[in-house]
Amino acid sequence: MRFHKIPEETVRRLPIYLRGLAVSPEQGQTHISSESLAAFVGVNSWQIRKDFSYFGEFGTRGVGYNIERLAREIKRILRLDVIRKAALVGVGDLGSALLAYPGFGAYGLDISAAFDVDPAKIGTRVNGVQIEGIEGLDRLKDRDISLAIVAVPRAAAQATVDRLVAAGIKGILNFAPCKVDIPKRVKLITLDIAMELARLPYYIPRAGRMDEEQRADSARQLQL
Amino acid sequence: MRFHKIPEETVRRLPIYLRGLAVSPEQGQTHISSESLAAFVGVNSWQIRKDFSYFGEFGTRGVGYNIERLAREIKRILRLDVIRKAALVGVGDLGSALLAYPGFGAYGLDISAAFDVDPAKIGTRVNGVQIEGIEGLDRLKDRDISLAIVAVPRAAAQATVDRLVAAGIKGILNFAPCKVDIPKRVKLITLDIAMELARLPYYIPRAGRMDEEQRADSARQLQL
Repeated sequence: MRFHKIPEETVRRLPIYLRGLAVSPEQGQTHISSESLAAFVGVNSWQIRKDFSYFGEFGTRGVGYNIERLAREIKRILRLDVIRKAALVGVGDLGSALLAYPGFGAYGLDISAAFDVDPAKIGTRVNGVQIEGIEGLDRLKDRDISLAIVAVPRAAAQATVDRLVAAGIKGILNFAPCKVDIPKRVKLITLDIAMELARLPYYIPRAGRMDEEQRADSARQLQL
Repeated sequence: MRFHKIPEETVRRLPIYLRGLAVSPEQGQTHISSESLAAFVGVNSWQIRKDFSYFGEFGTRGVGYNIERLAREIKRILRLDVIRKAALVGVGDLGSALLAYPGFGAYGLDISAAFDVDPAKIGTRVNGVQIEGIEGLDRLKDRDISLAIVAVPRAAAQATVDRLVAAGIKGILNFAPCKVDIPKRVKLITLDIAMELARLPYYIPRAGRMDEEQRADSARQLQL
């Protein structure tokens, strides 16, 4: 089975396992059972075993998974086994917070360049990274940077992404709250923070049995 | 059909449609076709029609969806038809960026309270919100705050979430990169930003046909 046949949802869970292995209570031990990993990361143990079955067998019945080997293999599959350099575009409040965020290193991710249009920011340093003008985006290819984080205002998102694609960037994490068009060969993940928060109220029950009533009410209103 | 029978993935897409309706090129017009909305938000038109079918019929063949009614109905279904107050816990770099982020208002979300343990921060204001000590968390119920954003370090995440649950919070957006345990009645969405970036390299092809070889290689190594 080729790696690219691994389902998207499994790829989504692999970093969760990796994160769990790094901080699990089994630290200092050599092995971890799927049940123990399951309890720690909050995924069913059968799901874990199924996810791992896509890329081979790691576990031994009764012994469990060798933690170090499993982590190394997940990193290899996720292609996190080498340091990956990323460029940040847009050093506003969110961009600055991302530059200061310590969590990327655990995955071998290094935000090694940052770009902004604001002349007042260019040349200053945030967390050791010197901010450059966006004309520098066109030279990313020479700097072994394959990933980019887009934290620009919505109106600038498409132009920024177009420029990154032209510069040979292969994967983009976009925080701008909009759809951007991108060639199929480039992987785009859009993370709209406000939208994530906006998903919560749906799950919050209203007082009483309002829903059925409201639904009937709206159905009436919507006889178009 | 009860609202809670709407699939999670549909609930995930509804805010995308809402976002699209708010900024689509059809602004100023009364109706939008599923095809036009599809092209604008990047979701297939059949998927849009299927998603809308879960909660009733909005469209008229040949005329499309009434934009205003559709937006109103999606807001109602997502329970975003009233202002939702949220508390932010943890006013570090990320928390400060979230307080300054202008995108929440579009969904009727209002971060109206912010909490931190740092005495130097307590009493100061970020984007008009005065930062309070975390003892104030216990009085959230009196302030009509049902949502919370957790942007504390990993080590403080579980205790923070426990305290929010005890204070009657019904939905939590957690940025701390860890699993937290929570009662079923509270909805938790965890957003691990580094992990999202870590998903990208998987989709970036390596030079040559390394994958098959590496897989065979790792299968050999992993004969446990």
